Amino acid sequence: MTKPKIAAAPSIRRLPSYLHIIKQLQREGDDYISGTVIAQELNLEPIQVRKDVALTGITGKPKKGYPISALITAIERFLCWNSIKDAVLVGAGNLGTALIGHREFQIHGLNIVAAFDRNPQKYGTAIHGVTVLPADTMEIQIRSFGVKIAILTVPSPSAQETADVLVRAGIEGIWNFTNVKLKVPDNVVVQKEDLSSGYAMLCVAMNVVREGRNG
Amino acid sequence: MTKPKIAAAPSIRRLPSYLHIIKQLQREGDDYISGTVIAQELNLEPIQVRKDVALTGITGKPKKGYPISALITAIERFLCWNSIKDAVLVGAGNLGTALIGHREFQIHGLNIVAAFDRNPQKYGTAIHGVTVLPADTMEIQIRSFGVKIAILTVPSPSAQETADVLVRAGIEGIWNFTNVKLKVPDNVVVQKEDLSSGYAMLCVAMNVVREGRNG
Repeated sequence: MTKPKIAAAPSIRRLPSYLHIIKQLQREGDDYISGTVIAQELNLEPIQVRKDVALTGITGKPKKGYPISALITAIERFLCWNSIKDAVLVGAGNLGTALIGHREFQIHGLNIVAAFDRNPQKYGTAIHGVTVLPADTMEIQIRSFGVKIAILTVPSPSAQETADVLVRAGIEGIWNFTNVKLKVPDNVVVQKEDLSSGYAMLCVAMNVVREGRNG
Repeated sequence: MTKPKIAAAPSIRRLPSYLHIIKQLQREGDDYISGTVIAQELNLEPIQVRKDVALTGITGKPKKGYPISALITAIERFLCWNSIKDAVLVGAGNLGTALIGHREFQIHGLNIVAAFDRNPQKYGTAIHGVTVLPADTMEIQIRSFGVKIAILTVPSPSAQETADVLVRAGIEGIWNFTNVKLKVPDNVVVQKEDLSSGYAMLCVAMNVVREGRNG
């Protein structure tokens, strides 16, 4: 088996922000939302929004738009966010602590059951209610939890060896916040976060605005 | 002036990881790199890589690929990463601390000159060499630094009021790690980071692999 390419990656990446906007309108009492409203909010083309939403299998009604509650259900089902998924976090430093405290993940069903770290002073302490366990018990603990998702926030030099342990422990998805390209078997998914991507976007956008002002 | 739409956003987002791979090969002594090699490393289609790279104005040679040092220069110039850019960080919590310590940003020319926080216990302390200053001196300090970029890692309820101060202080680009859609004048760029995007990708990819295994 080769790694599947996720063709609609940019679309999938946008769906969480759609969800955010749609839920906001739902709280304000609306029943329908148009693709144009989502597009305006996110500075996208309406056709792009319609294409992205079509991925989830829902179609809008002419002039009314999408029924909000059905749209939320469709997006959450497409993202598999309609069920709770247990995860562990490895590397309880500043980034790890920030991620554990990121409340939006819980809304999306991500349930961090434990954190692992190599620093004995952290053992047994709790970060936003999540207990820190010794990193060397990781393999056996993950197995006993039956957890399939791991969030990797260790220092880069330890990234590959940690990933090897995670794979042995039965982890099927690694959310990789290190800058290491991990080598894992084909049946394990790695989602690599590159914080520099956002900085690239910011720089290019600032440049476009500056050129617009000067030119 | 309306906000410019950055059409090639997914391409721009990929360029930093191209740079990472290309620099690695340069360190290994290579002079040329093919788009196919980059594509394999990142699990992309070669045509996509060629399109993305074409944005930077460089073209490869048949059979040899791209000359590595020219390619690095072209990408860095396109991203405006060929010069040092000063920035401030507002909100020196766990995420802010993690970002200040993220060494890759320095490689890309991002120079965080100061951090601001509301907690008096943090005033005057240093995070990875960056001094924490009182948040209520932010406007005057940013003006005197002449800084144009701000990284926003405050709690979401303070996001908009902080952004208002940043705009008054002359900030032109806000890298927004809160989940608030900021209201700013058209000449100010906001790059919003949504950590849930990566989680969405991970979930969909794990689902695709599972379906491949079962179906």
